[in-house]
Amino acid sequence: MQDVATSSRTAETTATATAPTSRAECAALDAADPLAALRDEFVLPEGVVYFDGNSLGALPRRTMAGVTRMIEQEWGQGLIRSWNGADWYPMPHTIGERVAPLIGAAAGQTVICDSVSVNIFKVLISALRMRPTRGTLVSELDIFPTDLYITEGVRRLVPDSQMRLIGRDGPDLESVLGPDTAAVLLSHVDYRTGRLHDMAAVTDLVHRHGALMIWDLCHSAGAMPIELDACGVDFAVGCTYKYLNAGPGAPAFLYAAERHQDSVDQPLLGWSGHADPFAFEPGYTPVPGVGRFLAGTPPMLSFAGLLAALEVFEDVDLHQVRAKSLALAELVIARGDELGLDLATPREPERRGSHVTFRHEHGYQIVQALIEQGIIGDFRAPDHMRFGLTPLYTSFSEVWDAMDAMAEILATKSWQDERFLRQGTVT
Amino acid sequence: MQDVATSSRTAETTATATAPTSRAECAALDAADPLAALRDEFVLPEGVVYFDGNSLGALPRRTMAGVTRMIEQEWGQGLIRSWNGADWYPMPHTIGERVAPLIGAAAGQTVICDSVSVNIFKVLISALRMRPTRGTLVSELDIFPTDLYITEGVRRLVPDSQMRLIGRDGPDLESVLGPDTAAVLLSHVDYRTGRLHDMAAVTDLVHRHGALMIWDLCHSAGAMPIELDACGVDFAVGCTYKYLNAGPGAPAFLYAAERHQDSVDQPLLGWSGHADPFAFEPGYTPVPGVGRFLAGTPPMLSFAGLLAALEVFEDVDLHQVRAKSLALAELVIARGDELGLDLATPREPERRGSHVTFRHEHGYQIVQALIEQGIIGDFRAPDHMRFGLTPLYTSFSEVWDAMDAMAEILATKSWQDERFLRQGTVT
Repeated sequence: MQDVATSSRTAETTATATAPTSRAECAALDAADPLAALRDEFVLPEGVVYFDGNSLGALPRRTMAGVTRMIEQEWGQGLIRSWNGADWYPMPHTIGERVAPLIGAAAGQTVICDSVSVNIFKVLISALRMRPTRGTLVSELDIFPTDLYITEGVRRLVPDSQMRLIGRDGPDLESVLGPDTAAVLLSHVDYRTGRLHDMAAVTDLVHRHGALMIWDLCHSAGAMPIELDACGVDFAVGCTYKYLNAGPGAPAFLYAAERHQDSVDQPLLGWSGHADPFAFEPGYTPVPGVGRFLAGTPPMLSFAGLLAALEVFEDVDLHQVRAKSLALAELVIARGDELGLDLATPREPERRGSHVTFRHEHGYQIVQALIEQGIIGDFRAPDHMRFGLTPLYTSFSEVWDAMDAMAEILATKSWQDERFLRQGTVT
Repeated sequence: MQDVATSSRTAETTATATAPTSRAECAALDAADPLAALRDEFVLPEGVVYFDGNSLGALPRRTMAGVTRMIEQEWGQGLIRSWNGADWYPMPHTIGERVAPLIGAAAGQTVICDSVSVNIFKVLISALRMRPTRGTLVSELDIFPTDLYITEGVRRLVPDSQMRLIGRDGPDLESVLGPDTAAVLLSHVDYRTGRLHDMAAVTDLVHRHGALMIWDLCHSAGAMPIELDACGVDFAVGCTYKYLNAGPGAPAFLYAAERHQDSVDQPLLGWSGHADPFAFEPGYTPVPGVGRFLAGTPPMLSFAGLLAALEVFEDVDLHQVRAKSLALAELVIARGDELGLDLATPREPERRGSHVTFRHEHGYQIVQALIEQGIIGDFRAPDHMRFGLTPLYTSFSEVWDAMDAMAEILATKSWQDERFLRQGTVT
């Protein structure tokens, strides 16, 4: 993978910035930040510095109004009539079209439905059926585990299918691709280290072996420009509750390239994917297009939260988001270097997502000590301390202050306090 | 089916009531209604009489406060910390335990997750795996179509499986059960006609043939006492947005009898069903118990709506609900008889759910003419006019008034007005 990932540069990558070296410089960067006004779009609690937007995005101020309108007006007053009158029925598509520009998808290829896990299932089964003479699904050991679990579920279900994993000390991608490879499922950004795959190069490599490319965009959608169409991607899935700020467990999105849609045959044949759901016919006829990935009735309260959150992105330039994300990360990395922290995230900007991760044997306690001061990052087993950078609301000054706090915690070893011990774990 | 359905009586069935014969009698029944105070728990728009709670339940007044608390406090202020601090993680279980008493389930057998369609998929695959020497799934032609579509999706996926349908002019249940039957999936209440199956008798019959019984409770949960444990049911699924009033597309519930849980092997192996999801292990180990049916991250905005809606049921006696439901239906049926309407719903109380359906060749236009007057029932192809009766907020007086309006519409043939024509249909 390393060879592939570094073999080309994505168009949006900027040169490595020089990180600010004082709080005053940080304040100057904040004052000049073209995205600074977006911070007011979010509720950010007093006394909290939030570096976990890569796990759960902060609450947009407009969410409450959008959800209230849906509940009080559309449901409360409109009742059943709102399925037509408030355009609830087409919402998996209409909201999908609001996600589409964020992932480089032309119209008609993106829907909102189910969870990432369920969508991966639908896409993997479809991929195996589209490559009936090939039985191997390739993924990576360090992908978010639900992707592996779902792949395992598919493998047990489809005779003669198998799973091969790349990464860590295992083989690289090129060495496992072959005439039996049906599809490759990779995470655009690694949930632990923040490593970014080169979408264009990897997709191209997979296609050269006749396989389908499926991207998991959970940790990149909303944090950088993504070009699914331009890269020729076959399928993609992603969540909306990280950098898209749609709320805990908000519905997922699913992208299917137009060229594949009419050959898609996924087994969750729910009525929402039927060509004429209100004909109530006993036989299933899939609707033409990406809608055939829909299954059950869409959850409107959660959809209302998603719709409001996407309004925040309406005039946002994702290239500006990416540039700020990389600059914020440079600051975290530079100060981490000063502290002698073990950086798990690639140093090259073009190989990074929007979070920075350090490894530390006492990472769990250090993260707890930071949280006690209102500085919220998170810990991922076995020893990863993650700091998510959300350019829509993260400032350079607060990164500076957080790294000051980190320096203090490390210098005084205050993380050794017993209240930061992991429950049930002897450290 | 007819033989089975009429062969026994469910314990909660009351004798046929005598329907009121005047509006004054209706007002007296309303005044004596032990459930009358519950009407104030709901937002019911001015000028609307709502008979579609069997499709989308009305908005509970407490929903907005519950959702607001979740969004502003738990998400907005608590941010990522609320997965633990506000007990989001266990919510599929904790809310499941609030549904459990409504369906006659002891603790530890009910979870909230996904949609009905996705849950049927999980249960059907599990059932086939639990009966590896049997390949036939039995359902009924008149079940809500998503059940058939999902069964078809499963059939295509599992080699040597097949689907057999009972009902209408087809065979009855007993004649299709045999040594190859793996499972039977039936709807407790028929979504069009309101016909109620005898859960105890049907489950017993299915078990005598060695097959598993799966009930779809979409059209009965919240409208009557249900006794899953007492009837020895194996699995059940149901939605929460009809008689449970949790909001459009709210998450579904899934019941798995305790005796089966550890042999369940369903293929949607999402991380929420893992024994230790935060260990982030590459291999899947299912959590013990019903939790192994969970897949993706639960949608908390929709969960908040469900939680608030279930609070309404806390002190509700479902036997009282059932008694009022049957009495309301007697009134609809009696007045329909006077109008010469063609009743599609069984006349015997013990064979009815909580909606009453008439067939009429101009049913679509008649329903539209009623809706124009604020009387909201619905139409289901080809010719079914449905009137859902929700004892928590439906009064005898409004049923009386609605049937007056129906009489007027039929007498004057006002439904012939061109604005009630179905778009694109010549009538």
